Amino acid sequence: MTSPTPTHPAQFASSDAAAPASDHSLLAPPEIDSDAAAIETPALVLDLNAAMRNIRRLQHAANKAGVKLRPHAKAHKCPDIARLQLAEGAVGICCQKVSEAIPFVAAGVRDIHISNEIVGPQKVRQLADLALHARMSVCVDHVSQIDALAMSTDAVSAHLGVFIEIDIGQHRCGVATLNEAVALAKHIAAFPQLEFRGLQAYHGGMQHKRGFDERKEMAAQAASRAAEIAQGLRDAGYPCETITGGGTGSAEFDFASGVFTEIQAGSYVFMDADYASNDYVGELHFEHSLFIAASVMSVAVQDQVVLDAGLKSMSVDSGLPWIWENAQRSTSFTYTAANDEHGIVRRVDHSGSTDDATSGELAPFPSLGAQVMLVPGHCDPTFNVYNRLVVIEQERVAHVWPIAARGMSW
Amino acid sequence: MTSPTPTHPAQFASSDAAAPASDHSLLAPPEIDSDAAAIETPALVLDLNAAMRNIRRLQHAANKAGVKLRPHAKAHKCPDIARLQLAEGAVGICCQKVSEAIPFVAAGVRDIHISNEIVGPQKVRQLADLALHARMSVCVDHVSQIDALAMSTDAVSAHLGVFIEIDIGQHRCGVATLNEAVALAKHIAAFPQLEFRGLQAYHGGMQHKRGFDERKEMAAQAASRAAEIAQGLRDAGYPCETITGGGTGSAEFDFASGVFTEIQAGSYVFMDADYASNDYVGELHFEHSLFIAASVMSVAVQDQVVLDAGLKSMSVDSGLPWIWENAQRSTSFTYTAANDEHGIVRRVDHSGSTDDATSGELAPFPSLGAQVMLVPGHCDPTFNVYNRLVVIEQERVAHVWPIAARGMSW
Repeated sequence: MTSPTPTHPAQFASSDAAAPASDHSLLAPPEIDSDAAAIETPALVLDLNAAMRNIRRLQHAANKAGVKLRPHAKAHKCPDIARLQLAEGAVGICCQKVSEAIPFVAAGVRDIHISNEIVGPQKVRQLADLALHARMSVCVDHVSQIDALAMSTDAVSAHLGVFIEIDIGQHRCGVATLNEAVALAKHIAAFPQLEFRGLQAYHGGMQHKRGFDERKEMAAQAASRAAEIAQGLRDAGYPCETITGGGTGSAEFDFASGVFTEIQAGSYVFMDADYASNDYVGELHFEHSLFIAASVMSVAVQDQVVLDAGLKSMSVDSGLPWIWENAQRSTSFTYTAANDEHGIVRRVDHSGSTDDATSGELAPFPSLGAQVMLVPGHCDPTFNVYNRLVVIEQERVAHVWPIAARGMSW
Repeated sequence: MTSPTPTHPAQFASSDAAAPASDHSLLAPPEIDSDAAAIETPALVLDLNAAMRNIRRLQHAANKAGVKLRPHAKAHKCPDIARLQLAEGAVGICCQKVSEAIPFVAAGVRDIHISNEIVGPQKVRQLADLALHARMSVCVDHVSQIDALAMSTDAVSAHLGVFIEIDIGQHRCGVATLNEAVALAKHIAAFPQLEFRGLQAYHGGMQHKRGFDERKEMAAQAASRAAEIAQGLRDAGYPCETITGGGTGSAEFDFASGVFTEIQAGSYVFMDADYASNDYVGELHFEHSLFIAASVMSVAVQDQVVLDAGLKSMSVDSGLPWIWENAQRSTSFTYTAANDEHGIVRRVDHSGSTDDATSGELAPFPSLGAQVMLVPGHCDPTFNVYNRLVVIEQERVAHVWPIAARGMSW
């Protein structure tokens, strides 16, 4: 087949036909100070006061423990949120990809750790360029990654921080033995433009273990593994200035570990349904601040309503969203299935329960057109489908912030 | 708490500090005619010749059956693909949301059916505006939706097609009884600017039933239900010019039904891993044309490699992606887990198998930096995370097309 060069069929306007006047004005964001109940749906909504309380709660705990906080911006991809975190005392941010860091550097963030290995000539070139404008660092777990970074930074006379990623139990990236870590540290030291800054030690799977004691035990093992490799590197003449890792599920253990010097939590600002399913006992309880505003678009089928927010408005990889009602998870209604642009809402089945909630009248379903707030299952990939964040305070729209790093997965 | 007005902490550059020169040039798309093997990853990649064969195969079957094809643009959100479909004979396209239609109207598509109910004053206003520029239609399953459409179209003197959605077994949207359908048709007829065009009869769940016979049986029941209501409406004086529905999983049954006059398939162009798991017997076999180009970014952990494409580069709601190797699903490697920006690849476990594939040497893992092609689990929400589509022909980059309706879920 030759390359198709389509003609203009009848259903296509010829090039001189009138096009709609100003298409994008049709998608104007909500007006500042407008009623949050009138937000066009689906929309990603942040309760700013709840988010600020979460930001301050974790920062306070970090300060008390004498541990630095470097929040993970992959959770939100939004420079305006990074600005709030830095204003409260964060030492910088993490990004997960090189391209994700670009809008943050452009917005003025001057200390970014890429908490990931970077492979590919264009990406290492981009990273070296960014290092001319901000204090940048990145992870390695292979000598060839170090060689590529050395070349790209040398080409533009950039200076770059390098962390050795170690595998403390997740078995994803990172070297597992002291010998491998020493070999990498030695290789980094061969390049004056690369600065060995320490260890990245992150265990993602542990963050989502439900039981408090199980997380505590895993965190202790992980920290002990990091301490052992850090000590071995020190003995070999490569002291680790920073040991960075941790997340929302393990932060309180990591703060107390005496091992981590820097914590990378991200979801704590938002508290998605997945993280909220963890069992928390200690100080670090966070509030839900992130919601999807949806509307009821069909009530035609008995015993359910259909929302206008489905797979294009959230990620369901960590479970379906919760319905949020009267400042708590709804005890009456549950989001039972997501299609591309539909969400099915049914009654919670209390049939096996002796709960008081089962007695009395059934709550009426929300009516056609009614706004319904959802707590997303997983905040990070949910932010990644929205171009903007509608920020509310006291039920009014206070700001509309660009999710500037949306789609930046290079 | 008062509204936080963050100061500029030390980690933020002051406003007069140098910002990176030209950030977005750093994210330039691949050059036309460059080698597909060098595409910056992750990237969404279309094999244009395979896509054209799929487009022509379904169009040919529609033509043969004397049924119209109105492909669903929610599958791709890309006006350039709609252009190809229309050039081959499609009568128009479907969109699933009003805002999704905007870039298609702007690109010149002049016949769009919104295959969904639309609720909310801004949305019905947008729809009326679009109806000034293109032949538009929409679904209803409640009288109040009709009232809102009547008001918005009246305000701008627009003319709008209206379909009654009927529930033919999915139990999502749509009315289930003839009485309800007649009441809606009667209400539509009260407004001269609204034109009753017929029935939308779609059964999403059926599309993904694996067994050919099971789909065939469900399709027959669904078509029979649609025929019954259409006949009842005709008897009541409301003839249905069009009965629209169907999808990639049911198209061949719908073509042969004698009931459907128009088919809305979308995924047939791409053939994601979910649809490819259906059992096909008839004529309509489609090829995989849509891929995610990923790269190996870590090989540090034994017996696996890690790709740079995870939950931010695909939707996993319908299962994890397949690894594509030598023009088929890999028999050696499997994508076992997705994190935000990581994908874990392990060997296929042949331990219980007596297959020839288990004999001989194990295939070596792809090396650090190697490109790996994936077949996404579900094409629609995967398109929704990418801003652009890299179109390849004979292993060269032929086009880079904007996914113009990405994120348009209003």
